[in-house]
Amino acid sequence: MRKIRVGILGATGAVGQRFVALLDQHPWFKVSALAASDRSAGKKYVDVVNWTLPTPIPGWAQDMEVQPTRPELDCDIVFSGLDAAVAKEVEWEFAKKGYRVISNARSFRYDPLVPLLIPEANPDHIHILAEQQKRYGFGRGFIVTNPNCSTIGLVLGILPLWLEAGIEKMVVTTLQAVSGAGYPGVAGLDILGNVIPHISGESEKIEKEPLKILGKLEGNSFVEAEIAISAQCNRVPVRDGHLISVSLQLKKKLNLEAIRELYRKFASPLAEWNLPSAPYHPVGLDGSTFQPQPLHKVNSGNGMIVTVGQLRECSVLDVRLVALVHNTIRGAAGGAILNAEWLKVNGYLD
Amino acid sequence: MRKIRVGILGATGAVGQRFVALLDQHPWFKVSALAASDRSAGKKYVDVVNWTLPTPIPGWAQDMEVQPTRPELDCDIVFSGLDAAVAKEVEWEFAKKGYRVISNARSFRYDPLVPLLIPEANPDHIHILAEQQKRYGFGRGFIVTNPNCSTIGLVLGILPLWLEAGIEKMVVTTLQAVSGAGYPGVAGLDILGNVIPHISGESEKIEKEPLKILGKLEGNSFVEAEIAISAQCNRVPVRDGHLISVSLQLKKKLNLEAIRELYRKFASPLAEWNLPSAPYHPVGLDGSTFQPQPLHKVNSGNGMIVTVGQLRECSVLDVRLVALVHNTIRGAAGGAILNAEWLKVNGYLD
Amino acid sequence: MRKIRVGILGATGAVGQRFVALLDQHPWFKVSALAASDRSAGKKYVDVVNWTLPTPIPGWAQDMEVQPTRPELDCDIVFSGLDAAVAKEVEWEFAKKGYRVISNARSFRYDPLVPLLIPEANPDHIHILAEQQKRYGFGRGFIVTNPNCSTIGLVLGILPLWLEAGIEKMVVTTLQAVSGAGYPGVAGLDILGNVIPHISGESEKIEKEPLKILGKLEGNSFVEAEIAISAQCNRVPVRDGHLISVSLQLKKKLNLEAIRELYRKFASPLAEWNLPSAPYHPVGLDGSTFQPQPLHKVNSGNGMIVTVGQLRECSVLDVRLVALVHNTIRGAAGGAILNAEWLKVNGYLD
Amino acid sequence: MRKIRVGILGATGAVGQRFVALLDQHPWFKVSALAASDRSAGKKYVDVVNWTLPTPIPGWAQDMEVQPTRPELDCDIVFSGLDAAVAKEVEWEFAKKGYRVISNARSFRYDPLVPLLIPEANPDHIHILAEQQKRYGFGRGFIVTNPNCSTIGLVLGILPLWLEAGIEKMVVTTLQAVSGAGYPGVAGLDILGNVIPHISGESEKIEKEPLKILGKLEGNSFVEAEIAISAQCNRVPVRDGHLISVSLQLKKKLNLEAIRELYRKFASPLAEWNLPSAPYHPVGLDGSTFQPQPLHKVNSGNGMIVTVGQLRECSVLDVRLVALVHNTIRGAAGGAILNAEWLKVNGYLD
Repeated sequence: MRKIRVGILGATGAVGQRFVALLDQHPWFKVSALAASDRSAGKKYVDVVNWTLPTPIPGWAQDMEVQPTRPELDCDIVFSGLDAAVAKEVEWEFAKKGYRVISNARSFRYDPLVPLLIPEANPDHIHILAEQQKRYGFGRGFIVTNPNCSTIGLVLGILPLWLEAGIEKMVVTTLQAVSGAGYPGVAGLDILGNVIPHISGESEKIEKEPLKILGKLEGNSFVEAEIAISAQCNRVPVRDGHLISVSLQLKKKLNLEAIRELYRKFASPLAEWNLPSAPYHPVGLDGSTFQPQPLHKVNSGNGMIVTVGQLRECSVLDVRLVALVHNTIRGAAGGAILNAEWLKVNGYLD
Repeated sequence: MRKIRVGILGATGAVGQRFVALLDQHPWFKVSALAASDRSAGKKYVDVVNWTLPTPIPGWAQDMEVQPTRPELDCDIVFSGLDAAVAKEVEWEFAKKGYRVISNARSFRYDPLVPLLIPEANPDHIHILAEQQKRYGFGRGFIVTNPNCSTIGLVLGILPLWLEAGIEKMVVTTLQAVSGAGYPGVAGLDILGNVIPHISGESEKIEKEPLKILGKLEGNSFVEAEIAISAQCNRVPVRDGHLISVSLQLKKKLNLEAIRELYRKFASPLAEWNLPSAPYHPVGLDGSTFQPQPLHKVNSGNGMIVTVGQLRECSVLDVRLVALVHNTIRGAAGGAILNAEWLKVNGYLD
Repeated sequence: MRKIRVGILGATGAVGQRFVALLDQHPWFKVSALAASDRSAGKKYVDVVNWTLPTPIPGWAQDMEVQPTRPELDCDIVFSGLDAAVAKEVEWEFAKKGYRVISNARSFRYDPLVPLLIPEANPDHIHILAEQQKRYGFGRGFIVTNPNCSTIGLVLGILPLWLEAGIEKMVVTTLQAVSGAGYPGVAGLDILGNVIPHISGESEKIEKEPLKILGKLEGNSFVEAEIAISAQCNRVPVRDGHLISVSLQLKKKLNLEAIRELYRKFASPLAEWNLPSAPYHPVGLDGSTFQPQPLHKVNSGNGMIVTVGQLRECSVLDVRLVALVHNTIRGAAGGAILNAEWLKVNGYLD
Repeated sequence: MRKIRVGILGATGAVGQRFVALLDQHPWFKVSALAASDRSAGKKYVDVVNWTLPTPIPGWAQDMEVQPTRPELDCDIVFSGLDAAVAKEVEWEFAKKGYRVISNARSFRYDPLVPLLIPEANPDHIHILAEQQKRYGFGRGFIVTNPNCSTIGLVLGILPLWLEAGIEKMVVTTLQAVSGAGYPGVAGLDILGNVIPHISGESEKIEKEPLKILGKLEGNSFVEAEIAISAQCNRVPVRDGHLISVSLQLKKKLNLEAIRELYRKFASPLAEWNLPSAPYHPVGLDGSTFQPQPLHKVNSGNGMIVTVGQLRECSVLDVRLVALVHNTIRGAAGGAILNAEWLKVNGYLD
């Protein structure tokens, strides 16, 4: 099989670096273009990137010449790690020129014709794309987005319950890692030995995005799920891994043992497709007293598994649990790559 | 006025050190005895304490000879910073011998004749003491306890709402500082760059203690308040200051502006007594976008003020807020000292 | 005594905030002007400053209107917390207009007519100022600088040895706090759980500045001291307090006991002047096994005392020791204020 | 090839866990016994270990029954991660019973018949073993030790210079990670946002161990190298990776460019043997401005490569550099495994 050639927009940024690392030796995709700001364009990637990941820069990436962020890249699809500030305009231009844009930015998440995709949760939402292409005049191009990093952790963390019992209400408190703010992001002086009990725009996303994701695609429009969600977000001095504390009310009551069984049995709805980045058990249940800790569990399934622990009855709603998601892998670049894999096996990258 | 002579049980521990520091130059109390384990007894305090506070050991304490923890201390009242493991037996013995025991330990918190005291919240609960003395044969002695550090932050943080509107339900998530676990407490390897999403016994205390505190003393028994509380507790890499994220449902509905007004106007019910450790505004409302942060606000009112921020409507219950309490001052030693002050002006230390 | 009116340049920055905090209730100085960038000018200080200190903004500062950084401020002297990038031009303009400039910036440190002042070490260097004023046409104005934060810790830490025995060589390794890099300074992602073994320009300053400070003012020129200094600098995840590990070779050999005695007896050469910010013992010797730790000792003498510990024989040179300095108090704003106090009692602020 | 069966003493401790992780899928060794305290004996490893590594417990180890620490283990050699407190007696007993003991403990490091081994530095020191076996009556058994974690980093970091030019003096300052103190080790309250400028016994080891390692085996005795070493050790809030700042004086002078060339060309003296854990370039030179940082470089060569950076002329001695070693891999368990590999290819494990 010929590999699909992919470009990375915002390749020097925090999410862009994760794309580069995760696409190293990907069986289906091959990075053929790295794009960044005009200031970096024309230079070698290794010379302009401030690489912050623990693994080294893949050899093939080091000497690649960084391209300017214009829709003339030599590739079939683009992964976008752009800041929202520029993503709206740039991604639209790329789609207009026929590029398939798999975006991590928030710009088009609420667009009525753009899927907000977590393939395990709403695999069929991609079927809006024909309508998107037609209405927006994208030709072969399109835009698919993945949700905010915390939203992904929340939705996957409660997915077995949602599918089996339905959920009416969720009270959410997050403890989010520093890498979620990009680079340079949060100042050392602000976060060393401290917690910042607010993240701009974050609670709004967590309260809103799941409604679209867990909603239904009816004809050519998304009908939102009816869940009341309340979120309060904290930045904590952790490098990687968002913890999401959830108290929720079920539609159909289940006892704890039944819930544990649900989680243990939960296999990926995508299992039969053997997608390279899709874990067979995308949600891991951990019954240990002191888990899930970011330091111990964030890399479960190469960062693609959401770990759920602290499961117990809630004395206000029905159930409490804590979900842990790797915010820059499953919650960003890895999630986007999984989206691309799902699009591929559905023929959308042909 | 002659100062009241006080002893400190567990004087070398984390809470004991706070007692020593906070009682330095106290206008009413004078430390006349420091007690610790037999291993330390007979030695100078400075030689056996592993002092971990940022301020130096007060001069008067450095050369004091540490006493064994037996009810023969040369003092009128004792503050107990003992571990729960030994507190039950030891505190009982002291009370039996006529000592007034102001305890930070959990051993007697649920005893039906022992006040669980936050003077701003349940000032009248001390009137159980006559019955306690009689029934337990304590003579002049008695035992008064203060709640768990997180409970104090929670109860004070919602007190203006409780008093004005009543509260039916609270969903609570805590982000607790390392000093709350004592010394040596949490291992560096466990907490550096990490979050531990469980603290043994903590959620149970937060769910249960407020019911007694906010309950009524009717005759000689406490009648619990009716509030449903659900708590999940996290340890975070912060030195001092527990953050408590609360979503709550009111009995009487109030809009946000009315709530803000409530908090701004809330003055200490103890104000007229001019207690040395009682802030005039025990609950501070902070409307800044990124507050209350432990690093910036934990020392408000010398660590005796609970700061509330992130106040907003909750889309599941009625109101969300975040409360910050200095866990080893207001939440432990400082809270106990305030309890002693309240007992004094009510004649219980005569 | 009428207070001297002072302005603060760079008042919203990290060092500027320290000036504001330290000048609160200063017995001799009264802040009459806060200056910052044009973007902040015209607004209230409280509205433009991102206050990062643990103590609150002094009341008088909160509502002061920030001025543009032009030499038309209503004050007699200015403290400069400016970045080196702009300090050179701006400080010169202020001096030209007759302002006395007490600067923390590095721009004029090596100027042959500008004192690089640590009053305990080189009190007489201020007598170059008449020549400076004449040659540079400053009229009543002048410029006085304080050294780099690590240099101050190093020079004070070895001052008793220098004065008594002379020093020929020093091998220095620093462990420097994050606040030394200003705000936002070091990114959280770079420093959480990490050490950065290089600080741009820092080792050069440590190797060079002491030569001028410990040199002699002969006539109207400074003659450098002859010491070989080698430095390597590390950034560590500590908020405040630079640790400086020194191995040094003495001119006149002294045994350890004699050295300890030297340190114990060392009193400030400025003692008789009773300067408000000058500790009587500017260098504290700590013989404890595990000291000086930043967390425990950085605030010694309100941050104006350098603490020396780990004193022992060196098997390569003669003596090893570790010095701890509060980098933004004694090492920056506090050092500059002490400089101003020294200038005042010498009549240079009349 | 049949795999050699190995036991691990102290298997539940910090170093023991590293042994378990590093021996997973080792081509030559197969863990056949895990030994720990009597309290753990008889239980499953997974049930008694407080696993603190980021990778999961290998499947084969989880259900192994922990053995008591007695010389009746079913294995050919033992790796010892024992505390020094018990290592002396236990390791001697094992050797007496014919076990080959590869120890990370310090108990026998200075024994005149025990090699203190870094195979790249003193490969021939193993030839003392025949004499050791004879004199101590060990039969087939023996004891081989690896140096302290900082010593290994220091010796490897300067090895190319030592071999080519000789070294007369070294002034050393270390910044050591928390994992070096074992588990629970350093209390969170002591190290969060702090530096502790002393590590008990550490500077002595760094000043002494290299003399034996870099010394010569002449006949049946070790003749120490003549180097003057001075060390001061700091604990810093980093998880893994000791930084070692060195200023050194060469016997034969070399300019910086020649030194860089030396490092670049330095290949392992063990290269021809293809040992599984021996990197071809055991010392990596990193010329980047801000390297080697623990977070970025500690895992070089799977934690077996020492990274050297900040190379420059020293104005007091000749050369300065900073070396980074993974303290629990190359500096402990990984170093011991490499020792075993070297013993094997030399026939000492037959």
